Amino acid sequence: MSLVKITPSKKPYVYLDYAASTPIDPRVLKSMIPVMRYYYGNSLSLHQKGMEAKELLESIREGFAKILKVAPQEIIFTSSATESNNLAIKGIVMADMKSNIDKNVVTSSQEHSSINSLCNWLEKHGLKVSKVSSTNEGLIDINHLKQLINDNTILVSLIYVNNETGVIQPLEKIGELIQKIRQDRLEREITTPIYFHIDATQAFGKIAIDITKLNCDLLTASAHKIYGPKGAALLYIKKGTHLEPLIHGGGHEFGIRSSTVNVPAIFGFFKAFELCQSLMKRDYRKCTSFSNKIIKILPQKISGVHFNVPKNIRLPNIINVRFDYIEGESLVYMLDTHHIGVSTGSACASSFLKASETLISMGLKPEQVGGSIRISLGRFTTKKEINYLLEILPQVVEQLRRVSPFTPAST
Amino acid sequence: MSLVKITPSKKPYVYLDYAASTPIDPRVLKSMIPVMRYYYGNSLSLHQKGMEAKELLESIREGFAKILKVAPQEIIFTSSATESNNLAIKGIVMADMKSNIDKNVVTSSQEHSSINSLCNWLEKHGLKVSKVSSTNEGLIDINHLKQLINDNTILVSLIYVNNETGVIQPLEKIGELIQKIRQDRLEREITTPIYFHIDATQAFGKIAIDITKLNCDLLTASAHKIYGPKGAALLYIKKGTHLEPLIHGGGHEFGIRSSTVNVPAIFGFFKAFELCQSLMKRDYRKCTSFSNKIIKILPQKISGVHFNVPKNIRLPNIINVRFDYIEGESLVYMLDTHHIGVSTGSACASSFLKASETLISMGLKPEQVGGSIRISLGRFTTKKEINYLLEILPQVVEQLRRVSPFTPAST
Repeated sequence: MSLVKITPSKKPYVYLDYAASTPIDPRVLKSMIPVMRYYYGNSLSLHQKGMEAKELLESIREGFAKILKVAPQEIIFTSSATESNNLAIKGIVMADMKSNIDKNVVTSSQEHSSINSLCNWLEKHGLKVSKVSSTNEGLIDINHLKQLINDNTILVSLIYVNNETGVIQPLEKIGELIQKIRQDRLEREITTPIYFHIDATQAFGKIAIDITKLNCDLLTASAHKIYGPKGAALLYIKKGTHLEPLIHGGGHEFGIRSSTVNVPAIFGFFKAFELCQSLMKRDYRKCTSFSNKIIKILPQKISGVHFNVPKNIRLPNIINVRFDYIEGESLVYMLDTHHIGVSTGSACASSFLKASETLISMGLKPEQVGGSIRISLGRFTTKKEINYLLEILPQVVEQLRRVSPFTPAST
Repeated sequence: MSLVKITPSKKPYVYLDYAASTPIDPRVLKSMIPVMRYYYGNSLSLHQKGMEAKELLESIREGFAKILKVAPQEIIFTSSATESNNLAIKGIVMADMKSNIDKNVVTSSQEHSSINSLCNWLEKHGLKVSKVSSTNEGLIDINHLKQLINDNTILVSLIYVNNETGVIQPLEKIGELIQKIRQDRLEREITTPIYFHIDATQAFGKIAIDITKLNCDLLTASAHKIYGPKGAALLYIKKGTHLEPLIHGGGHEFGIRSSTVNVPAIFGFFKAFELCQSLMKRDYRKCTSFSNKIIKILPQKISGVHFNVPKNIRLPNIINVRFDYIEGESLVYMLDTHHIGVSTGSACASSFLKASETLISMGLKPEQVGGSIRISLGRFTTKKEINYLLEILPQVVEQLRRVSPFTPAST
């Protein structure tokens, strides 16, 4: 008799929270099972079972490297995007701690909670962190970024696609700017390096990523946002970038990330990434069509609907929308009773009832932030599900407005 | 066309490296598949899919807590034993960094590479680390430990069962000692706390662990050493123990370990642990019988065989043995050509050609350490496999001795 029993709910559920975590693609799951079963060796062991794991691991590393057009040694596997982000930032900051005492890090008001929490912690321990503000549309203000970067800036860390709004930041442009700063420092014989880290968790596998054009030194990506398993992620580390490890030990992953390597999950990550490569256009087109439909139909069915971000600057799979006189969290709960799953802000911050820093920095008022929800679509979203959402969501909003103390009497 | 193809070798292989990593128990693998498939929600999401993941996670936490007789909130899930060890030690050391400047940590010469590497790193950054020496049998020298602990000691970190020798350390006795030190400090009004961390990775699931009797504040355990999946581990953290997180972010795991929680792997970990509970006696008896057979037969078949540790102080599944005039690594390679997988030292250090600190500290000469191999047995080891080992191993040793430059001409 087990203490833990599962009763998987197989009832239809309209899952529209792909940005929080995607279901694993059945093809990925199927491909992982023989790896879980047969590739159990520790990749550092010298015998056949170790070598099998090691060879598979290295062929996956080469696969990622080939698609991303980087060197295999520049890919380090970790357990999660949060870990990759921590490794990147703590790794750079702690690499030369003594000489980094007066240095600073620049990030933005649009970051994921893993970057925000980490930066708060680093500030508590004496590091100076500045945050670039954003436009009302959620785009990083490049002029402000230029003002914030000074000769003591050792790291700029920016999100590629925001997890709450889907806004795609113009990182190639920012990469060019940072490249110019590097050259300028070189000419002025300033030896302080400036590194550029990109949290590409929401972008990876959804849009083509060109690491060379991005001019970045570090880039984070994760499996469970692209229909892969939980427990696998990567950090691209440009050759020559010196990082202090976060997890010390047996020297796996070129000494940067010790721990018995989770080869089965990393294999699933790669299979998921390959699937994203081949389905990218199809998935993108489908999400665009659903997103357009929501944008068109929703305001026809109900008043006081506001999309927080224009569709031309965001990924089509993330729709951040607010409703007048509505509390987003109530809406999430009500939709859930109708078997529809959406979220307020990001999952990684949703349990704290904290207003979204992302939306606040876009100039939204607290009640507008509180009235916002994120609808995030994905590969398995169907037309029927979107029609169902468009039927239920207006009803639920009406219902909530009827009992809301904020609703004007005339509505 | 995938860039990475697998061709799992299903040919019989005598895997005797269970201490490096165990094959996943097919029952565990099977149980995980529906969890991977249906429990994909982010455990922090507020909708049904999030709640399902969260409820499952919390019931697993309660399951571990019930078996280990601790409170559920005292169990934190991580991605690996190495991560748990890092979280425990860095977490304590960094929790009160300013006041910890003159403090010290005590560990031993018998630790896993994750503890050794981490302590080396901490020493490089100014922390004082002392190492307790061991007896010739590999047991921690308690008198030396008493000498090393002073009023500035904030942490004692010790391995429960050594990964290379299987030696079981008398940690209940040491826990009592530390408890006395705590009381003594209290009486003398010394406010510096002393924490006790146990790396129980090789002990967990193999012997009954009584956390109360161990008087420890922190305890590490991992799934992939007990027939569970890779990518899941835990850290027991006694209530009231303040740790700095290693991985900052969305606040999962009570804020101690952020990252979308890998619920499927943690479920597999628990299933594996439950299986270990019910099969513990059977597995132990079987390994004891095979270990006895090896100890009896090997010296009958070949001269110059020395078991590095007496069987009464170690787990039966780890046999560390050396052969005169033999280089252990050659033996590993030769046995591998006969489809037998053993190791020299631990996998986590085996690729570095570094002499085992564990064996060196037991007083073995470098050539004796170099001539040692670890044979580690497990649940799926069969009588036939042991007979095959006992047939091949002496042959291979003879063969190597014939070509070894160290073999005296008379042999």
